[in-house]
Amino acid sequence: MDDRTYIKSHIRTVPDWPEPGVQFRDITPLLQNPKVFRVLIDQFVHRYFDVRPDVVAGLDARGFIIGSVLAYELNVGFVPIRKKGKLPFTTVEETYELEYGSATVELHTDAVKPGDRVVLIDDLIATGGTMMAGKRLLERLGAQVIEGAAIVELPELGGADKLRAAGLPLFTLVSFEGH
Amino acid sequence: MDDRTYIKSHIRTVPDWPEPGVQFRDITPLLQNPKVFRVLIDQFVHRYFDVRPDVVAGLDARGFIIGSVLAYELNVGFVPIRKKGKLPFTTVEETYELEYGSATVELHTDAVKPGDRVVLIDDLIATGGTMMAGKRLLERLGAQVIEGAAIVELPELGGADKLRAAGLPLFTLVSFEGH
Repeated sequence: MDDRTYIKSHIRTVPDWPEPGVQFRDITPLLQNPKVFRVLIDQFVHRYFDVRPDVVAGLDARGFIIGSVLAYELNVGFVPIRKKGKLPFTTVEETYELEYGSATVELHTDAVKPGDRVVLIDDLIATGGTMMAGKRLLERLGAQVIEGAAIVELPELGGADKLRAAGLPLFTLVSFEGH
Repeated sequence: MDDRTYIKSHIRTVPDWPEPGVQFRDITPLLQNPKVFRVLIDQFVHRYFDVRPDVVAGLDARGFIIGSVLAYELNVGFVPIRKKGKLPFTTVEETYELEYGSATVELHTDAVKPGDRVVLIDDLIATGGTMMAGKRLLERLGAQVIEGAAIVELPELGGADKLRAAGLPLFTLVSFEGH
């Protein structure tokens, strides 16, 4: 079995969560199995080993779990992008639309320097709203987001295409049909 | 400068956040500096290298950042303990009191096995409510929490003493006076 098939086989689908009709792709089984966890993280480490980003930025909160290990392994800094109200220092913020309502994410103004090359990481790309907002935050501080990374993408929701169309290359490991 | 002094010197104090009179201890500068980040994580790696826990459990959300790297480095699984409503599979939950109101945390029922030896980690121990709730969750599933770990403890808030009195050994790197 190749690495991506091995990883995909450990993602748990939870039907009708958080609402009827949604098939939730649960990555927690990837984390709790030591071998799967290592194989998973190493996909990203190998991908960015020669790229040498200056910073890994992780999206709140599952993006923290893979982003922080990636940063440690690459010997670069880790920067959290958080839901509004969680970061104590001065921030920039971006609001984006959800199916019902909106959400706001924040980034510390001193988290990156102009010219920093950043890998932006989350567990899953669905509609792409959070990752697009994260990209805008980093760019407002003068950084360059060289790639967006995630374990899973859900192509039918259109987020990955939207991000690529906005000029963000993506690196994802597995994709699932449906929502 | 010893490692703990070096780490402490990179923690930023934000006055009057999230409310007047609180001195918030912001760990994000530890993460974004690659050397400080590595020295920080390695304190925990060295501490648990010979202890060989079966699992590292991290508390939502800053506990994810250090806990996941620790788990990867020790070649053990990582388990997230999350705020209510974030975990999709069947869970156990614990509610604890806050200064105003209460909070609930959850753990997947298959996250640990009976007899698992767990290190439970967060960024900071203040009143100790979250870590105590996490300990109870893990114990309800038959696991043994062999130590609680954090970067910072705030002794005046009494949480660290309360946890130790409840039989949980603690490993923390730095402490600050005041709230």
